[in-house]
Amino acid sequence: MPEITLLVLDADPPPRLGALTGRVRVLHADEQTLAAQLPHADVLLVWDFLSDAVRRAWPGDGPRPRWVHTASAGVDHLVCPELAASDTVVTNARGIFDQPIAEYVAGLVLAFAKDLPGTLELQRQRRWRHRETMRLAGTRAVVIGSGPIGRAIGHTLSALGVKVALTGRTARGQVHGPEDLPLLLTRADWVICAAPLTDTTRGMFNARMLGAMQPSARFINVGRGALVIENDLVEAVRNRWIAGAALDVFAREPIPPESPLWDVPDLIVSPHMSGDTIGWRDDLGAQFLELYELWAAGKQLPNVVDKKRGYVPQHD
Amino acid sequence: MPEITLLVLDADPPPRLGALTGRVRVLHADEQTLAAQLPHADVLLVWDFLSDAVRRAWPGDGPRPRWVHTASAGVDHLVCPELAASDTVVTNARGIFDQPIAEYVAGLVLAFAKDLPGTLELQRQRRWRHRETMRLAGTRAVVIGSGPIGRAIGHTLSALGVKVALTGRTARGQVHGPEDLPLLLTRADWVICAAPLTDTTRGMFNARMLGAMQPSARFINVGRGALVIENDLVEAVRNRWIAGAALDVFAREPIPPESPLWDVPDLIVSPHMSGDTIGWRDDLGAQFLELYELWAAGKQLPNVVDKKRGYVPQHD
Repeated sequence: MPEITLLVLDADPPPRLGALTGRVRVLHADEQTLAAQLPHADVLLVWDFLSDAVRRAWPGDGPRPRWVHTASAGVDHLVCPELAASDTVVTNARGIFDQPIAEYVAGLVLAFAKDLPGTLELQRQRRWRHRETMRLAGTRAVVIGSGPIGRAIGHTLSALGVKVALTGRTARGQVHGPEDLPLLLTRADWVICAAPLTDTTRGMFNARMLGAMQPSARFINVGRGALVIENDLVEAVRNRWIAGAALDVFAREPIPPESPLWDVPDLIVSPHMSGDTIGWRDDLGAQFLELYELWAAGKQLPNVVDKKRGYVPQHD
Repeated sequence: MPEITLLVLDADPPPRLGALTGRVRVLHADEQTLAAQLPHADVLLVWDFLSDAVRRAWPGDGPRPRWVHTASAGVDHLVCPELAASDTVVTNARGIFDQPIAEYVAGLVLAFAKDLPGTLELQRQRRWRHRETMRLAGTRAVVIGSGPIGRAIGHTLSALGVKVALTGRTARGQVHGPEDLPLLLTRADWVICAAPLTDTTRGMFNARMLGAMQPSARFINVGRGALVIENDLVEAVRNRWIAGAALDVFAREPIPPESPLWDVPDLIVSPHMSGDTIGWRDDLGAQFLELYELWAAGKQLPNVVDKKRGYVPQHD
């Protein structure tokens, strides 16, 4: 019998785990059974990264997994104070989503600059209406979040000629601290949120922040929904404080059909998919296997989350 | 009285010509009056670049402008055999449209890769439907047309991680000759047409060429409409020979409301605007003034079109 018990919290089963057959006892949990199973697991793989069941089911001081890995970049759904205080190691899927999300953001930025939504709407109406559009090169972006995703967004936009400023929790190297954000906001054509959800960042995009933006600017959120006060954003777009916005993440997901978010003019709504390119589940499975082999061999794990801060600290 | 007569063929008057006041007699022509005015002009500025009136009104062996400048990249609407055989110099707006069109193409490519049209349609239906999308980096593009616009498209897509092959009239340096196109077509995810319209290129994208593409590939035309057999393209998209297309130019512009092009699924139709960023008319006016000063001083003009070939030859 394998000595190691791997508990997988999942809706759809993850690919690739077959590679562990015979070496690891793999058990599956759902939101109902998780609390009963957690004390008997050595490792927890949080495959259903939209669930916050771990926060609720975490056993506190009792027996618990020594290692928790989440198939997501954010850990806000996962880390409760008891888990933060424990010696359990938490790792994330750092690296998998960077380039896909950067491409997705570049696509949104170009769609706004070239008025692609307007073109598609006019096409529906069979109307030929020439418009002048925006030149992207030379515009200014501020990216909030200086982790791998924020930096990939910065690189990609820079490659398109955009002048990019990155902001993080503290100023370091090329990264601006939060004290620079108010001024950067007033100058930006693109305000892009790729920050982790922490006690500090929750609700940071409120009426005051959005009101500081230029009327011609657009706001894009690929971080977490709760970073934004959604009612304030709807007001900002409806009242033309800003020219438009795109949200890929929401305080409550999925957003229900009756949500007012669906039909705000110049607000693009997408179903939390910015990082999910074809093959992403396979990539996440392969990444977990790689980390598992390191863990089983007693080696240092990469992607270790600072549980108090709520993200993987930068080392460069 | 100024000795030089500048005739301007225009629908809307061009900006910036006020700088010539007192030095140049500026006359305006429309399609009806052009033939009568051409023999008395030293310089013709073709500001209405959609008109083919110059082809029809060109005076042959009679008195005629010594220099013709067109506020466009293409000269297909302009150069008739008699003009090609004459010693009249033709220049174009080379350089103005390169970067805007490259951005526009990058926006279309990303919109296809990330299924932005699908997202906007689902939003209209208030439906949350997660999809996996395409990773752009690592895909392959072939750009037909190795002039400044084709090269700008190549640079921009390369910056996004796309593997780009450029094809031109003849192989030279990094540019492939037409003999490589069939094989390149079968491997490309993106086939982008930015070629000039000449006797050689007219109708080149027919059923055979489109049929050689991968079923997952998309075709984008920002060159001239007549490069494509539109009925063949509609068939190719409707019958899923290819996954989609975007046309910014058409054999007949504007396309009428009853055109079948408007409502082909996965075909994006835009009104010949890919190069027209805010301020473009001003840029075109400034470029003409710059060329005018060189011409008036008897200096060598840049952007001189090879009238037989139908474009400005590369010198690098």
